[in-house]
Amino acid sequence: MPTRLSHLFLRTLREDPAEAEVTSHRLLLRAGYIRRQAPGIFAWLPLGLRVKAKVEAIIREEMMVAGAQEVHFPALLPKEPYEVTGRWDEYGSGIFRLKDRKDADYLLAPTHEEVFTLLVKDMYTSYKDLPVCLYQIQDKYRDEARPRAGLLRGREFTMKDAYSFDVSDEGLDVSYQAQRDAYERIFARLGLNYVIVTADAGAMGGSRSEEFLHPTEVGEDSFVRNASGYAANVEAFRTVVPASIPLDGLPAAEVFESPNTPTIASLVDFVNTNHAHPTGREWTAADTLKNVVLALTHLDGTRELIAVGLPGDREVELSRIEIAFSPATVEAATEEDFAKNAALVKGYIGPWSLGGPVLGAEATSKVRFFVDPRVVDGTAWITGANLHERHALNVTAGRDFVADGVIEASDVREGDPAPDGSGPVEIARGMEIGHVFQLGRKYAEALGLKVLDENGKLVTVTMGSYGIGVTRILAVIAETNNDEKGLIWPENVAPFDVHVIATGKDEAVYEAAEKIVADLEAARYDVLFDDRPKASPGVKFGDAELIGVPRIIIVGKGLVDGVVEVWNRRTGERRSVPVAEVLSHLS
Amino acid sequence: MPTRLSHLFLRTLREDPAEAEVTSHRLLLRAGYIRRQAPGIFAWLPLGLRVKAKVEAIIREEMMVAGAQEVHFPALLPKEPYEVTGRWDEYGSGIFRLKDRKDADYLLAPTHEEVFTLLVKDMYTSYKDLPVCLYQIQDKYRDEARPRAGLLRGREFTMKDAYSFDVSDEGLDVSYQAQRDAYERIFARLGLNYVIVTADAGAMGGSRSEEFLHPTEVGEDSFVRNASGYAANVEAFRTVVPASIPLDGLPAAEVFESPNTPTIASLVDFVNTNHAHPTGREWTAADTLKNVVLALTHLDGTRELIAVGLPGDREVELSRIEIAFSPATVEAATEEDFAKNAALVKGYIGPWSLGGPVLGAEATSKVRFFVDPRVVDGTAWITGANLHERHALNVTAGRDFVADGVIEASDVREGDPAPDGSGPVEIARGMEIGHVFQLGRKYAEALGLKVLDENGKLVTVTMGSYGIGVTRILAVIAETNNDEKGLIWPENVAPFDVHVIATGKDEAVYEAAEKIVADLEAARYDVLFDDRPKASPGVKFGDAELIGVPRIIIVGKGLVDGVVEVWNRRTGERRSVPVAEVLSHLS
Repeated sequence: MPTRLSHLFLRTLREDPAEAEVTSHRLLLRAGYIRRQAPGIFAWLPLGLRVKAKVEAIIREEMMVAGAQEVHFPALLPKEPYEVTGRWDEYGSGIFRLKDRKDADYLLAPTHEEVFTLLVKDMYTSYKDLPVCLYQIQDKYRDEARPRAGLLRGREFTMKDAYSFDVSDEGLDVSYQAQRDAYERIFARLGLNYVIVTADAGAMGGSRSEEFLHPTEVGEDSFVRNASGYAANVEAFRTVVPASIPLDGLPAAEVFESPNTPTIASLVDFVNTNHAHPTGREWTAADTLKNVVLALTHLDGTRELIAVGLPGDREVELSRIEIAFSPATVEAATEEDFAKNAALVKGYIGPWSLGGPVLGAEATSKVRFFVDPRVVDGTAWITGANLHERHALNVTAGRDFVADGVIEASDVREGDPAPDGSGPVEIARGMEIGHVFQLGRKYAEALGLKVLDENGKLVTVTMGSYGIGVTRILAVIAETNNDEKGLIWPENVAPFDVHVIATGKDEAVYEAAEKIVADLEAARYDVLFDDRPKASPGVKFGDAELIGVPRIIIVGKGLVDGVVEVWNRRTGERRSVPVAEVLSHLS
Repeated sequence: MPTRLSHLFLRTLREDPAEAEVTSHRLLLRAGYIRRQAPGIFAWLPLGLRVKAKVEAIIREEMMVAGAQEVHFPALLPKEPYEVTGRWDEYGSGIFRLKDRKDADYLLAPTHEEVFTLLVKDMYTSYKDLPVCLYQIQDKYRDEARPRAGLLRGREFTMKDAYSFDVSDEGLDVSYQAQRDAYERIFARLGLNYVIVTADAGAMGGSRSEEFLHPTEVGEDSFVRNASGYAANVEAFRTVVPASIPLDGLPAAEVFESPNTPTIASLVDFVNTNHAHPTGREWTAADTLKNVVLALTHLDGTRELIAVGLPGDREVELSRIEIAFSPATVEAATEEDFAKNAALVKGYIGPWSLGGPVLGAEATSKVRFFVDPRVVDGTAWITGANLHERHALNVTAGRDFVADGVIEASDVREGDPAPDGSGPVEIARGMEIGHVFQLGRKYAEALGLKVLDENGKLVTVTMGSYGIGVTRILAVIAETNNDEKGLIWPENVAPFDVHVIATGKDEAVYEAAEKIVADLEAARYDVLFDDRPKASPGVKFGDAELIGVPRIIIVGKGLVDGVVEVWNRRTGERRSVPVAEVLSHLS
């Protein structure tokens, strides 16, 4: 049966809705695919549901090829497994929590690692049962602080999440590759441009991790890449570490008075005026070591101050620092933090270490001190002396201070060298559309998923997790397939194969259109039929352009000459085709 | 591609799981269709998901025939619409509630009347847009006090809920009938025995309401029916009201001392001993009026005592009384309630009314008094005198007391006459599998869903709501299609069309089985292939019987003679069929 526009639950909007921030959101609302229910929470209308079902079908097909088996978990799950793995706490306010009538804790699961692990534990006992890869396509909930851009970052979204279970690391590599290959096939079939970037494990824990990013200005992830194929997300980018310098014969550190130099720029000016560079060049910000005080909040709620030293021409990048201290969160220290730590002389903080040499008599502190990878032994810096209005020259790493650790603390910039030697990188923006991830044994260990190996010994299973955002993918397709008139769906996810429009008031036209529609349906085309007797051709064409079915057939005045118009929504081309040839023309 | 048992995520259980209370639950667990996650919350394994998808496909087809269009709402919804209609409060602790990070209230929707109403309000404005019928197949959550019987009464379940929108009452009748007819077709296709019973509106409000009950001992609903086609649920059963009796000349009421007669039985004994019946027969419990004190809890939390008078041979049925006072809840009065109301002389309570004559000097009370429909004017009763150790004879309705109202207060019994005159009813137990419901204008009124009528006047839309429990239906099918060996699925919802078993160790058998499987798949049969090389025939046959695919092909020893066995799981019949004739034999 064709879907008739006279009957379809649809009302297209002429105006852009005020709530829409990005193209996909605007067009999916205007064309009647979705409707907002609450911030980041949407209902799916008939057109949207059709596209979603088609995207899901493609994913299911490729999961089957990859040997993954479909199961389905509820969104509502008990707290206990998530407490065992620590994620109940780690997710903080990012998940929805609730209690049942017996006061038991539940959550709306953000992902399902824990319960898949327990399911396999419940069912399987032997290495012979493995490998197995399970997946579901399921509605997920996360209490995002800033839901935005329609489906691109919602609080409710449909996700395909898969989990693999292997006995060996080599097995995990195979399972990982099978999902990774499936993702490449899925995105290729959906015509989605993507970059596979090395990702950092973040809150999930584990080893190999790659994100599929769709490059787009509306994306909220930054990533780096270069023409030689290097790609990583900003958190995973590793700084190229310079060679260290022998300490022998390096000039001694020298403290000097430096009134009114609380900023890097004022300090550089002051030093250029008062302390000539030995080679005669100007001092620059890159010669200074900027020491920034930050506050970690650990899972148990305790707050710990740390300091991070990085070259003065670089900016602190909290998202990169957070990786080093995950699951703790990181923020700038407050005035109150400084007030409580008298040894921290704001504006004049210098390097120190708890274990190594300390510079400045008053700098004894319980605050751990970390450095950027560029701060290798033998590098000498202009930096704070931990005394009010005092700085120091030739403060040398490995001699005057030894850090408590090295962390990626700085921003990544256009032109920074890629860690694999493939040359300078550029910065791009992207939207995460998939993620493949070697979890390793973290979850199996925590939840006791062990099987008997060939020797009858219990071994812990190793796992991977693999996610695709179904509704986000749909939005990205909409974001990249449109023009000023509306959506232009790729054929394999369009809500219908063909959109047939009957125009005018002539009964014969509608009868001929009915016949064409019936023939198309008989040939297994899914047809949207604009049979509205009172809508003008302009309204019908406008709706067709907005809805975005890629092939449109207009039955109208040409009928007296035995022809209809076949309109390619993407190219805009309209061609007269004899009625008898419509089917062969489409195929 | 066939599904291979060597690969399928499945582990059948030999023992009945302790948690299973009913057959369907036991077999769905043992055969690896579902797994418990929390009380009343289940995960779906590959076999279960296949059956569920087939049930859903049948429902979708019949919804399309009925002209209903599919949409999809999230489970997580904001409180506000549910507050406007009062359901946020009415559901009490029966729904899951939660707050987001901004402290806004949300619920996991038990049903979606409110948001469907708002969606149509958002999209449609004119009578020309109507009627429209929308539905979804969606995972719902209810915080049941006593989840039980596996999928039969879960806290999470999949439901098809449809909502119709019409301008006129006649339109609603048509929409209602279309869904009702669709339900009859769905249950017929699923081979489900059902009775359509008149139901009471209960908490939903509205007019016409019918439940589809599947008669089963494990059902939790009682209903009444008779051979003439009358059927109603117990709450909707209406008592046949006897004719009233003229008051003239009836004997006067007479108070008597009645020590130690706090129960109906002791009272009847006492009266038979001390007060002969005028006709000489024995007094019976049916001659007494039992007055029961109950406590209503209103939505706003206030507690109100009421008293209900009914013949002493009847039992109070709270579920029927609750209908009269919905959305208030009803329970028995406590000792504390009696203590606070000195006029209520426990064990000797008699009738009274706030407006009418009062029997007994101390009985002045603020407690409203209701009677059962059998207590018509002119009926005379032995009843309490509202005085300690005092009862009265010949207390006559309409003369000695006038009730504040008539309500259905008594239990329904085998042999009670049906209200339509069709004769005595019997009591049966059933499981609700569908519900069709004329909501009328309640939701549209509350949420402001109005459209312009033909005269340009705003009119309130009238609605229906129609629900089918998808996962419950699946469980009912399992409950009614099994034997001591396992499940026996009807063909159209079986997880596979054919289950092919290769037996023994002979390579040639497995090769021949592969060929048969490939031929079946080519002929569009969905095949489960037991290709496990090391499992014994006994294990394979046992698993096949447990899993319950209705047609089984055994490839084994007969192969040397060119035959396989075709096994009908339902009848148990096994027949030798030449390999070349397998396909034609199946079709």
